[in-house]
Amino acid sequence: MAKTDNSFIIGVDLGGTKISAGAVSRDGSKIAGVRTTETQAELGAEAVVDRIIGLIEGVILDATQEAGATKKDFVGIGIGAPGPLDRENGLVIVAPNLGWKDFPLRDRVMKRLGLPATLDNDANCATVGEWWLGAARGGNNVVGITIGTGIGGGLILNGELYHGSADVAGEIGHTTIDVNGRHCKCGNYGCLEAYASGPAIATRAREALVREDAASELRTAVNGQLDRLTAAHVYEAAKKGDVLANEIVRDTARYLGAGIATLLNVFNPDVVVVAGGVTQAGEALFSPLRAEVRRRAFKPAVQACRIVPAELTGTAGIVGAVKNFLAAQK
Amino acid sequence: MAKTDNSFIIGVDLGGTKISAGAVSRDGSKIAGVRTTETQAELGAEAVVDRIIGLIEGVILDATQEAGATKKDFVGIGIGAPGPLDRENGLVIVAPNLGWKDFPLRDRVMKRLGLPATLDNDANCATVGEWWLGAARGGNNVVGITIGTGIGGGLILNGELYHGSADVAGEIGHTTIDVNGRHCKCGNYGCLEAYASGPAIATRAREALVREDAASELRTAVNGQLDRLTAAHVYEAAKKGDVLANEIVRDTARYLGAGIATLLNVFNPDVVVVAGGVTQAGEALFSPLRAEVRRRAFKPAVQACRIVPAELTGTAGIVGAVKNFLAAQK
Repeated sequence: MAKTDNSFIIGVDLGGTKISAGAVSRDGSKIAGVRTTETQAELGAEAVVDRIIGLIEGVILDATQEAGATKKDFVGIGIGAPGPLDRENGLVIVAPNLGWKDFPLRDRVMKRLGLPATLDNDANCATVGEWWLGAARGGNNVVGITIGTGIGGGLILNGELYHGSADVAGEIGHTTIDVNGRHCKCGNYGCLEAYASGPAIATRAREALVREDAASELRTAVNGQLDRLTAAHVYEAAKKGDVLANEIVRDTARYLGAGIATLLNVFNPDVVVVAGGVTQAGEALFSPLRAEVRRRAFKPAVQACRIVPAELTGTAGIVGAVKNFLAAQK
Repeated sequence: MAKTDNSFIIGVDLGGTKISAGAVSRDGSKIAGVRTTETQAELGAEAVVDRIIGLIEGVILDATQEAGATKKDFVGIGIGAPGPLDRENGLVIVAPNLGWKDFPLRDRVMKRLGLPATLDNDANCATVGEWWLGAARGGNNVVGITIGTGIGGGLILNGELYHGSADVAGEIGHTTIDVNGRHCKCGNYGCLEAYASGPAIATRAREALVREDAASELRTAVNGQLDRLTAAHVYEAAKKGDVLANEIVRDTARYLGAGIATLLNVFNPDVVVVAGGVTQAGEALFSPLRAEVRRRAFKPAVQACRIVPAELTGTAGIVGAVKNFLAAQK
């Protein structure tokens, strides 16, 4: 690499409700021009492409000023999108939140901007981002878990993003933790996601409120309208010392701990990085989670692994999409 | 490789009750001189080394005759042993069935025979064996599951045996399938091994016999002495159409199916190969097992994967140990 290399890659993180993008220098030392806009998926795929292009043009403008780059310094685009994907052909195969089927996202963006582009799964990108510049730096075998509306995941194995035989590896939210357990949206029973995703945490809190009829900050927070209760309310109430909310957080730690212990026994990673709203609960979550993993997993696997909250809030997906672009150029 | 290459590597599969060994040609086309002897672990580690050396000398003698090799054609030794291991230093760290701690097995064998040697986990070797010359041939991402007294496993990812960060990856028997489930010998709760290992199958059968007080071939098979009941009795009775035994086999398929579905969602392999006594149940096991996986795992992951019984009964560990030796020479 020449010392004067000032090239940037644009990372795009496409979600069902918002799109984020930013420019990252080839060596990862500079992140510039980060912007976010609404997806407005209801306007259709082509309109979303328009919004992505507009966002990228804005990123280029901002990054040019922020980082002293010129237009020719922007050499490519890495895109992260909800899966399942056909990476080789750059297609989003199915994306329920976007209403897309077999949409050639990569080539649409590539042609509009005249720059090479790559496409990978959003949860994979988030994991790669944390591995390249975030909390999982230095790891050789990394499990990334992103907890939001669902639970996504990504795997770095022997220093490379692992995709599996049909690009669908890393669906960590859909590890069974109870063979006879809660029904999951994926059709399976007892998936980790059915216990520890944001909506699942809210559901368990609602069930506890109904079942136990106990006094709780949670009732007050939603003026008794339990259907308005979210996972964020649970974290806030737990921080204020609410007993029931703390039980829900501890149960969440227990479910996540069981799932992560399985991953430790099978993958023996050196880092597990947990991202998403649930990390707002901080040590109230991580402390019992780590204890649960210690109780459940093999000792050498526990000793080899640190379990840490993600660092790159809001940019992990962008950064990882850029890294995936760079990896594909090799 | 010269056309005249007639070199052989000796594979050793060390278990708690027996040791098997055989010679495999470098290209895998010839397997010769396979022998088995008792481990007699109670005589101590040095005595077991003596038995291994004796066995290998016998293999060399037989293979020389069977395959027209001369002594100098035997170029190395691959050893599979119960883990956890320190591969780099060739140590068996702990092996409860052998009573060993930090035993330098690789170097003991190497020095006694004056040949280079490698050491790897027995379940890893069995998976590699099936991948090289058995039921998982041609796979790029392979999950191997060996069901016996315990449930061991091995992972081939992107065409290479995966070891993890501390050589303990692949402990597939210790994936949690029920967070509140049966206590497992490993200390965890609800591990797959606690439901689907040989002894676990026998335990579930005994429990069902006590609980249901039903007529069953199983009672007759052990003259009412339920403590003598083994998993093999269950497979035999199921084959004869015994209702209760068939329920136990179907439940086993269900538990294994849940565990394998998790592995499909996380690894997205192209082959899952199942070895061990449980495969004696044949389609009575595999048919409901595959159905359970189809019900539980993501469709693209199901479509990408064949779930097959192992082929190399008695030699997978030997063959895989040889392949690991060859891989280490590269």
